[in-house]
Amino acid sequence: MENRKINIADKLGCFQKEWAPHIIAALNGQYVKLAKLKGELTWHSHADEDELFFVLEGFLTIQLRERDVHLEKGEMFVVPRGVEHNPMAPQGASVLLFEPQSTKHTGEVITQRTVT
Amino acid sequence: MENRKINIADKLGCFQKEWAPHIIAALNGQYVKLAKLKGELTWHSHADEDELFFVLEGFLTIQLRERDVHLEKGEMFVVPRGVEHNPMAPQGASVLLFEPQSTKHTGEVITQRTVT
Repeated sequence: MENRKINIADKLGCFQKEWAPHIIAALNGQYVKLAKLKGELTWHSHADEDELFFVLEGFLTIQLRERDVHLEKGEMFVVPRGVEHNPMAPQGASVLLFEPQSTKHTGEVITQRTVT
Repeated sequence: MENRKINIADKLGCFQKEWAPHIIAALNGQYVKLAKLKGELTWHSHADEDELFFVLEGFLTIQLRERDVHLEKGEMFVVPRGVEHNPMAPQGASVLLFEPQSTKHTGEVITQRTVT
């Protein structure tokens, strides 16, 4: 997939399912993914992977145990490895994710929304 | 820098110099950088690093030896490791870069624009 340019709007138009990240690029052992979010995912952490969230549309709140991080379009946040977090988007959001290929969707927590 | 949210527009407002990438986040051995481009950089390659260009503003052409890749706002392209490329933005562009922390600005080529 690295040989062609990637149009984000086109890629977002290719799927509707929420909480199901789509891989759009792979480089240096990392994935770039797009995801549509609505509601909340679940509390989880990734023991060995930092995870970047970049908001493309809408509003995303990343709940951390000690505070909430509120992100709007054009804002990003890195959840460091080992830090519990719960992504929430009550009104819906589209996000770009940048994370290692080894990253599990909801860490060691399995819910109905977990994609394996 | 990973403990705070990052507003891309704010970060772009913090510098004017072209061809001088600014690191805005570090994760998993990778950097996220912002850069303003105008004109062309130079032909170069990175032996061991894939490099992602994501256009935030303007138009970017990535010249490859066998073709040109034309990118506009909302489009990205991964230059695979070892592939010679020359970024060009005659009218100017702002881009987000994802690349390993080890990536040298212009590979093994040194020009007046090279940032070390």
